[in-house]
Amino acid sequence: MALVNPKTISIFENSIEIRVRYQETDGQRRLHHANYLNYFEMGRVELLRANGISYKDLEDSGVILVVTDLQIKYLRPGDYDDVLTLFTSITRSKGARIEHQYELKKSNEILASGNSTIASIDNSGKPIRLPNWLQRTV
Amino acid sequence: MALVNPKTISIFENSIEIRVRYQETDGQRRLHHANYLNYFEMGRVELLRANGISYKDLEDSGVILVVTDLQIKYLRPGDYDDVLTLFTSITRSKGARIEHQYELKKSNEILASGNSTIASIDNSGKPIRLPNWLQRTV
Amino acid sequence: MALVNPKTISIFENSIEIRVRYQETDGQRRLHHANYLNYFEMGRVELLRANGISYKDLEDSGVILVVTDLQIKYLRPGDYDDVLTLFTSITRSKGARIEHQYELKKSNEILASGNSTIASIDNSGKPIRLPNWLQRTV
Amino acid sequence: MALVNPKTISIFENSIEIRVRYQETDGQRRLHHANYLNYFEMGRVELLRANGISYKDLEDSGVILVVTDLQIKYLRPGDYDDVLTLFTSITRSKGARIEHQYELKKSNEILASGNSTIASIDNSGKPIRLPNWLQRTV
Repeated sequence: MALVNPKTISIFENSIEIRVRYQETDGQRRLHHANYLNYFEMGRVELLRANGISYKDLEDSGVILVVTDLQIKYLRPGDYDDVLTLFTSITRSKGARIEHQYELKKSNEILASGNSTIASIDNSGKPIRLPNWLQRTV
Repeated sequence: MALVNPKTISIFENSIEIRVRYQETDGQRRLHHANYLNYFEMGRVELLRANGISYKDLEDSGVILVVTDLQIKYLRPGDYDDVLTLFTSITRSKGARIEHQYELKKSNEILASGNSTIASIDNSGKPIRLPNWLQRTV
Repeated sequence: MALVNPKTISIFENSIEIRVRYQETDGQRRLHHANYLNYFEMGRVELLRANGISYKDLEDSGVILVVTDLQIKYLRPGDYDDVLTLFTSITRSKGARIEHQYELKKSNEILASGNSTIASIDNSGKPIRLPNWLQRTV
Repeated sequence: MALVNPKTISIFENSIEIRVRYQETDGQRRLHHANYLNYFEMGRVELLRANGISYKDLEDSGVILVVTDLQIKYLRPGDYDDVLTLFTSITRSKGARIEHQYELKKSNEILASGNSTIASIDNSGKPIRLPNWLQRTV
């Protein structure tokens, strides 16, 4: 199934708000560090959506994005019920790879910063070139 | 793909040990109540395995099991790093449904008890009869 | 620490929207059944907030709410990226217990319905009477 | 509360086996990438336990360990029900920081490799020196 009328991405950064759920905290009553990766994933998906693209449709069309590399620095803890702002940007999108940067903030404080590389594969797991409209040319 | 040499189930109850992970606790430093459902799922899978059946193979063969109904009573909290024992039993397995009972214990104390109904569906989501060898006849 | 100016609850039902996250799906590409309990918890917290009460502040004041009993029926699957609506209502709030009902919907379809009992305990785990303002008198 | 008879750590690497749970998979039917961090955490805890130390007791004694920095490379996917082997090693433990390396394998294949820095803090969140017996001197 091909994506209908995919738009070329033109928005390379945006932000979303995320409220820390009780289930996401741990015995320190703070956001467990593994959940930051789920937030980053939400950031990537919403950045695609801001460009008019549903990641679900992309996957249905046979383009699967998988994380291959991730770095994260945890600077300050996130607390239960905090409303955090996640800034996500695409720094590179070329060939079969997309690179993102992330900054998770609570008001003006940075809680965590990170970056990741995503590879595009097909249903059999083989790397495939990103669709042209998903390549960042500027 | 058909399951190769499926065995008829003959073991209807067993127990497994599960250590509470840090990530599974919440701000109360106790096992978060949603995780009990993951434990129950592990109990069902291991009870199948005790019968020589891999749930993964079962799914690959086109029989997908989904929870349709679940009741749980939480009696005492589970703490971080506790080693708990989960008792799982199949109380009924007939037609397109399997019924299980669960008891999660810490030494002699019961932390939670529950029961669930599982339906078998095909890849399109339609209910299908359980394979004969998965029906409980005694 | 006592809650500052707690308001008496007067709103007994509300709804929230929840988008299914990728991490919440399982190998069936559907919302894993344990995550419904996290959604219910979010429903309870937001219903308190609609009444002007932060569950976090409530816990800080020494009133901890724990689930003691939960029933859920799964009627239809939730898919990745679905925007679902969760209806939560307080059906009873008296003594040391609150009872809730839940309905999780996708447009007009009911995906799941459930109900639960919550007990209020203190930091040592002993049941304590709910604050007066949290008792439902109508 | 002080730790009773803490032993000096002398074991700097070990391995544990982890079976991939259904709930840990995502719509690609593979181990979701955020769960690798939970596995790494289990590796750290079990490496402490191999040295006769319970992380829970350590936390009760007022020494809380938090992740400040983490890098991970995902090389191959983990599938549902795989039994994986996680190798964890302490490469440095000095002052208020512990550094770990990780390798997650499926038979002889490396699924992921990573490393992290952990800081020790007290209950108020202030960095504190690691107990002497937790410092790696060789």
